[in-house]
Amino acid sequence: MASKMASCIFCKIIKGDIPCFKLYESEKTLAFLDINPLSRGHALVIPKFHGAKLTDIPDEQLSEILPIAKKLVTATGAVEYNILQNNGRGAHQEVDHVHFHMIPKPNAEEGLGVGWPQQKTDMDKLKALFEDIKGKM
Amino acid sequence: MASKMASCIFCKIIKGDIPCFKLYESEKTLAFLDINPLSRGHALVIPKFHGAKLTDIPDEQLSEILPIAKKLVTATGAVEYNILQNNGRGAHQEVDHVHFHMIPKPNAEEGLGVGWPQQKTDMDKLKALFEDIKGKM
Repeated sequence: MASKMASCIFCKIIKGDIPCFKLYESEKTLAFLDINPLSRGHALVIPKFHGAKLTDIPDEQLSEILPIAKKLVTATGAVEYNILQNNGRGAHQEVDHVHFHMIPKPNAEEGLGVGWPQQKTDMDKLKALFEDIKGKM
Repeated sequence: MASKMASCIFCKIIKGDIPCFKLYESEKTLAFLDINPLSRGHALVIPKFHGAKLTDIPDEQLSEILPIAKKLVTATGAVEYNILQNNGRGAHQEVDHVHFHMIPKPNAEEGLGVGWPQQKTDMDKLKALFEDIKGKM
């Protein structure tokens, strides 16, 4: 973990070793502008606790994420927007430190592109899956 | 608000008037399988409090969302996955009751399709935007 943190660009931003356009900071959370934005106001909220994926972050380190995302929406004046958190390269994660995107969607060209390859609903398959997952919750 | 709640499909699910594959329920939160999944294990976490967009939900009604999303990841065995919450028709929201998708990304064909129309970084523009937003946080 220590070596991963040392090379993590978001940990460096948290420490102040790399500058950022800091919008909010508390003991456990940081929010700043994405410098490669998909739209005006695209910003990130991150837990200061280092972890690559959502399940790596203790619940108590996540408590301010959504309230701060709300602040970003209001401050940017976004009307339509997506909250997105990617886990794994295949799921479009680029930095291995959990981060939540707040991406304003002002029009069809800017902001997040959403592809929705919906599967055919198979109620028998869903029911079997449900029984399986339910037992693990 | 009362009439919007009466016609809201998720409020009907919460009340038990429409069935669902319920994975988790507490006083303020519900999780269930999406019946039009993008991949095996695609599930939703919703606050019981009715509101169309994230900023319509009081902070305290959001406190269990991410911890329960973590439970869904673990229970489904998802390795790569996206957490997504859409706000507004243009941002791909279909049901006007805040819902967080947990969408496993098992391969390139299934799960969320992510389009990333990154803009050219303009540091002067970002700095001006930062000054504007920072004052509103």
